[in-house]
Amino acid sequence: MSNTSEDNITVRFVTENDKEGWQRLWKSYQDFYEVSFPDDLDDFNFGRFLDPNIKMWAAVAVESSSEKIIGMINFFNHMTTWDFKDKIYINDLYVDENSRVKGAGGKLIQFVYDEADKLGTPSVYWCTDESNHRAQLLYVKVGYKAPKILYKRKGY
Amino acid sequence: MSNTSEDNITVRFVTENDKEGWQRLWKSYQDFYEVSFPDDLDDFNFGRFLDPNIKMWAAVAVESSSEKIIGMINFFNHMTTWDFKDKIYINDLYVDENSRVKGAGGKLIQFVYDEADKLGTPSVYWCTDESNHRAQLLYVKVGYKAPKILYKRKGY
Repeated sequence: MSNTSEDNITVRFVTENDKEGWQRLWKSYQDFYEVSFPDDLDDFNFGRFLDPNIKMWAAVAVESSSEKIIGMINFFNHMTTWDFKDKIYINDLYVDENSRVKGAGGKLIQFVYDEADKLGTPSVYWCTDESNHRAQLLYVKVGYKAPKILYKRKGY
Repeated sequence: MSNTSEDNITVRFVTENDKEGWQRLWKSYQDFYEVSFPDDLDDFNFGRFLDPNIKMWAAVAVESSSEKIIGMINFFNHMTTWDFKDKIYINDLYVDENSRVKGAGGKLIQFVYDEADKLGTPSVYWCTDESNHRAQLLYVKVGYKAPKILYKRKGY
């Protein structure tokens, strides 16, 4: 287990050089959710993250001592009929299994909050599996569970 | 109670002339959710619905016999990191209390499914209150409950 303490973690937007590190976590994240996306979706996403005209971003948590990328968060902007301002949806959050002790997840979410404030769209939300209690240990500290449930079209 | 049977209901995109009918249901919808939006948000939304450059739409269910607008559905497009294709989110669905017998809700959702298919973004989803079992009587027929829960940033 790497010696990762909170002040040894910095969070920043991805750059072109982070693709490999981001992809490693993006693959582990897919394993966790038991899904498997084509590699070119990685390229498509990473291209969107770096495109200043597309309101989709990714940030990484970096262990300062090793400069290793230990966490990733992908988020984007979308409209809502309930407000003039858009909202920010956190689509993916994943922290390396060996580095889940010192607040990387909380720092990644806070990074999104700060960016959302800068963008003038402070309303941030996300989904998680009902059964993911480990993640919810963090989520109840940084947010609150909305009394909502999700329905999908059959087959999707 | 108006005599509303399913084949007496047609669903179509809103036009400029539908604003009053849409607004009446939009206000009832707000009452149902115990929220209250400023009137100029109605104008802002309706402008977005009619703007061909903005991927936000509204449709209404019309009782053919009376030409009365008895239902509304508002939906929009947004990105996802899980697919090349965008998704469609149904933001609001409301049917007039006096017309909730003959399938207006199901027809409104089917309208969105058909439009989503035409747009090439067939993945449609929505949220509802956990406690809204009446709506879920319909939702389990036209979709399925995803094992997901929603978290929000504190204060939003």
